[in-house]
Amino acid sequence: MIHITLPDGAVKKVPEGTTPMEVAKSISEGLARNVISAKFNDTTVETVTPLKENGTLTLYTWKDDEGKKAFWHSTSHVVAQALEELYPGIKLTIGPAIENGFYYDVDFGDQSISEKDFPKIEKKALEIARGKHDYNMRSVSKADALSYYKEQGNEYKVELIENLDDGTITFCDHSTFTDLCRGGHIPNTGIIKAIKLLSVAGAYWRGDENNTQLTRVYGISFPKQKELTEYLQLLEEAKKRDHRKLGKELELFTFSQKVGQGLPLWLPNGAALRERLEQFLKKAQKKAGYEMVVTPHIGQKELYVTSGHYAKYGEDSFQPIHTPKEDEEFLLKPMNCPHHCEIYNSHPFSYKDLPKRYAEFGTVYRYEQSGELHGLTRVRGFTQDDAHIFCTTEQLNDEFKNVIDLTLYVLNSLGFEDFTAQVSVRDLENPDKYIGNTDDWEKAEQAIINAAEEKCLNYVVESGEAAFYGPKLDFMIKDALGRNWQLGTIQVDYNLPKRFDLTYKGSDNELHRPVMIHRAPFGSMERFVALLLEHTGGNFPLWLIPTQAIVLPVSEKHEKYAEKVLNSLENHEIRALIDKRNETVGKKIREAELKKIPFMIIVGEQEEESATISVRRHGGEDLGSLSVDAFSDLVTTEINSTLKSF
Amino acid sequence: MIHITLPDGAVKKVPEGTTPMEVAKSISEGLARNVISAKFNDTTVETVTPLKENGTLTLYTWKDDEGKKAFWHSTSHVVAQALEELYPGIKLTIGPAIENGFYYDVDFGDQSISEKDFPKIEKKALEIARGKHDYNMRSVSKADALSYYKEQGNEYKVELIENLDDGTITFCDHSTFTDLCRGGHIPNTGIIKAIKLLSVAGAYWRGDENNTQLTRVYGISFPKQKELTEYLQLLEEAKKRDHRKLGKELELFTFSQKVGQGLPLWLPNGAALRERLEQFLKKAQKKAGYEMVVTPHIGQKELYVTSGHYAKYGEDSFQPIHTPKEDEEFLLKPMNCPHHCEIYNSHPFSYKDLPKRYAEFGTVYRYEQSGELHGLTRVRGFTQDDAHIFCTTEQLNDEFKNVIDLTLYVLNSLGFEDFTAQVSVRDLENPDKYIGNTDDWEKAEQAIINAAEEKCLNYVVESGEAAFYGPKLDFMIKDALGRNWQLGTIQVDYNLPKRFDLTYKGSDNELHRPVMIHRAPFGSMERFVALLLEHTGGNFPLWLIPTQAIVLPVSEKHEKYAEKVLNSLENHEIRALIDKRNETVGKKIREAELKKIPFMIIVGEQEEESATISVRRHGGEDLGSLSVDAFSDLVTTEINSTLKSF
Repeated sequence: MIHITLPDGAVKKVPEGTTPMEVAKSISEGLARNVISAKFNDTTVETVTPLKENGTLTLYTWKDDEGKKAFWHSTSHVVAQALEELYPGIKLTIGPAIENGFYYDVDFGDQSISEKDFPKIEKKALEIARGKHDYNMRSVSKADALSYYKEQGNEYKVELIENLDDGTITFCDHSTFTDLCRGGHIPNTGIIKAIKLLSVAGAYWRGDENNTQLTRVYGISFPKQKELTEYLQLLEEAKKRDHRKLGKELELFTFSQKVGQGLPLWLPNGAALRERLEQFLKKAQKKAGYEMVVTPHIGQKELYVTSGHYAKYGEDSFQPIHTPKEDEEFLLKPMNCPHHCEIYNSHPFSYKDLPKRYAEFGTVYRYEQSGELHGLTRVRGFTQDDAHIFCTTEQLNDEFKNVIDLTLYVLNSLGFEDFTAQVSVRDLENPDKYIGNTDDWEKAEQAIINAAEEKCLNYVVESGEAAFYGPKLDFMIKDALGRNWQLGTIQVDYNLPKRFDLTYKGSDNELHRPVMIHRAPFGSMERFVALLLEHTGGNFPLWLIPTQAIVLPVSEKHEKYAEKVLNSLENHEIRALIDKRNETVGKKIREAELKKIPFMIIVGEQEEESATISVRRHGGEDLGSLSVDAFSDLVTTEINSTLKSF
Repeated sequence: MIHITLPDGAVKKVPEGTTPMEVAKSISEGLARNVISAKFNDTTVETVTPLKENGTLTLYTWKDDEGKKAFWHSTSHVVAQALEELYPGIKLTIGPAIENGFYYDVDFGDQSISEKDFPKIEKKALEIARGKHDYNMRSVSKADALSYYKEQGNEYKVELIENLDDGTITFCDHSTFTDLCRGGHIPNTGIIKAIKLLSVAGAYWRGDENNTQLTRVYGISFPKQKELTEYLQLLEEAKKRDHRKLGKELELFTFSQKVGQGLPLWLPNGAALRERLEQFLKKAQKKAGYEMVVTPHIGQKELYVTSGHYAKYGEDSFQPIHTPKEDEEFLLKPMNCPHHCEIYNSHPFSYKDLPKRYAEFGTVYRYEQSGELHGLTRVRGFTQDDAHIFCTTEQLNDEFKNVIDLTLYVLNSLGFEDFTAQVSVRDLENPDKYIGNTDDWEKAEQAIINAAEEKCLNYVVESGEAAFYGPKLDFMIKDALGRNWQLGTIQVDYNLPKRFDLTYKGSDNELHRPVMIHRAPFGSMERFVALLLEHTGGNFPLWLIPTQAIVLPVSEKHEKYAEKVLNSLENHEIRALIDKRNETVGKKIREAELKKIPFMIIVGEQEEESATISVRRHGGEDLGSLSVDAFSDLVTTEINSTLKSF
């Protein structure tokens, strides 16, 4: 008999050789129906692998990331089989699961495929899946494995096998198909009910551009057809909400090849939006006792040697800037903290002066390879809504609570309701990994957890996830499409205060070291605006949106009245435009819809006579005939419902 | 007889050999008494130089910069003589006039002098001056000149003479003193009535640090003792108003050796001041039809090759930034214009869309040698209140007028009343120096002059001072100490639109090239704040000053009431602090005075009982007992008297 420990701590005594699936059955038939993969003692196993020793077993269903991974990896075998059958002579290389689905890299030789071939491949793969074939893992000797693939003339698999030196080489068989594979499959192909190929792309063998270019086939699969349909709808919606597409349509930002990749140029609409976001946060920060500072975008290399950033990032980032006549080296700043430490150090402080809270919309530059760049979410220069709080350990609790309050205020004002938090603490078994004394760490971790508790955050504590310099709390938000984004972070830091020798005079008249908190509710202006675009699809909260209303005169005759209305709207501090083009009102409305303008103000004969405006809301709702004053009240009420004061 | 033309165009017929002084006498005895130097056909001459041909003669008095230059240069001879008499064996090198006074570089050999020796040197020099010695210029042969100084063992003068190859070497004699000299003296030493040595410093011979270090003696002199007294008072006042001193006292900015020289760190007070200045300008700019944009602080080297900035400044500025994995080169941006051109280029425009006015508080970086750095006026990174207007040639006139309006509004709101303007136009004799066609230049120059006329600016037109790419208008302001500062500039540019191939579609449906205007009313935030500090001595306009009022409780007993008052002031949007230290009100007032806080609010028994406050204005005026509401009205009225709406 062996002892199998389950994640809830329960221990099952079962005969040696019992499989994970049998364990599942012994728990419940319902569970067994849903189990699709398993992990035993931190190693992925098949659901049919006989367990031969005591250990911890985790069973996965489709709901788990690990379950999905096994599902998609298993599907890649089926798709590979379909490809082999449809395109004889092709050479398979690798086919892993990825975040959403899987891919298979294939050398098609003289043949090629395109998206129009997808339906027939999908059909063939589904036929295979419906055969309900089991996945059978078997060990093979290196010699046998090599000879198998040499016979097929597949130099890729041969290379893979030659590089495997752990002694155990496994093949996976299902139906008539065999593949070199480490394992981690679902019980059988029958549970794959929907398969969709998504795209093809070129990919170099082993990612090296000196090697052969292979064809990468991306796909995804589901246990129910309905789930595929929903996924494809989500994908379609995500495409429509792609911030790069919306950013262009709403004229928020652009990129220039001449200025450089990953360096956004904010157009007037975008710059105004950013300014409103900044002013909004500045106002809240002022109330929360922050003081703004302004620091340069470069610093001497020495500054980052002191901070430790140079040792950590120097080689991989933008290289030092030299000066023509003096022996100096500067770096583009990758972070604002060293500058803020120097500001703190420019003045002696006593405990009565703390906390000091220095905030800056600080633009930082970090090198990313051009292939990694993506719209506003992965850039080479971005502006952090940064702040550093210098306080005593005793003040940590309150400061953390205040930062959480501010962050929640910010996110709520922007229409995010659904977030979770992760508290990252030390790995207690490796205390040497961390700087700072144990007592301070305990206080800091407890302060964060207390604050998360008191603020009723939906949080998890992750051991061993803290940075070496201190524990932290990260905010994760779910956007309108259910996607998770990591946003603002709050981090405790014992490292920089030491490196910069920051001190304050305590009530005991001795010098003490302050603790530092790094925090950024938005994260960065670039990333946040991208997220906001994808979350709202461009329908920003009314207080934030570039154009709140557009005046549409029915004909040229009413232009004068339309301008009077525009002027009156502006006097009510409503951001409005006028569309005087010689087009039909219908067309103007359609374009205003595309531009996500919340209110369309139609003015013609009737409105001019009654000194009113006809208001149509974005999306179609007719608000009827109103006075400008009444409309302004409506706008104010709507704004105040989202944007409360801090 | 020869014809002498005077600056007013009048022509005098005089015998050949007539001196400038004799011409002056022929005009009036009064003029002759005041003339101290002269220029004949663009060459500096002595007032006793016989004129031998037809030509144009300008006579200078103390009021002219050229007159002062001759006066100070002549004084340097007298001071040199005094030094030789007091310190036998020293070697004289050069002794020019400078902006305020003169210096003489001297090799003191084994001897040395310090500030405590100044009185005896000044006394000796004045004694010499009172001798009313004439300055007599005479030509000497190179051989004689060399043998004169070789005999003295003065290798410096020998080196100077050896490098003179224009054939005419002149010595100037006065009293018993002789010096190698090009000329340009006052009639005699007697008119020097006051001499003051200001400082000594080290200076390398010919500015080369491989040469001997000489002693540079700085001094100044005046035709009246009273003028020296006034100058010294001004110097004292300027020291008190030195923006570096005030910036420290008012905690506006600091520098850190670790961050780097010339890279200001704006402290909370300074950052808030800057923010208010920026918001003030943003508001006015919005009304004037500008749109804000935001661009990165770096750009590819290629961008500046296109703009021409790289060819012009590349070698002498911060060197290119390389990336670790790709073959890319970036530069810290020295100007915002290339980025704004790329924004313009990201969208096709028609003539109906123009003018486009892109504004940005853009931080730029330009290398300056560390020895040249000076507080906030000469830095390595600064933020321009930059904007670029893209318009048609026809729109130039209106755009220029609008920019002048905005600039005057900005300067007036900040308490500057006294400014002049310089319009820089082409040198018509060298048309090849300029880019763009003659017709456009004429229109642009005329547009600027018309605008300056219409706006009643006090302006001068300087031929040949235009940049190669367009004419411009510079604002010069006089500060409270009468010093001139060059501030905002408005520049027309035909060059960048061509280099970036900017176009717009005209009413003829053809593509045309827009004209570009660069403008910055503040110039830069750093320079402007420095100037404002020196102009106001830290007593900023009430709307701008960091702390408008400070509440001073008479004793601890009244702290609670003081806090209530503070709260009430804040509700009236008055920026106020409280001073709760256990110090006397007298001491608190003195410190508030030093901190330039405009209003001190004293609260004690009597105020608490009557629910009022006692207000004392900076400088001492007692405003008596007021309600907070009445005080708030007073503040508002005072702000509105300076800060009108645009």
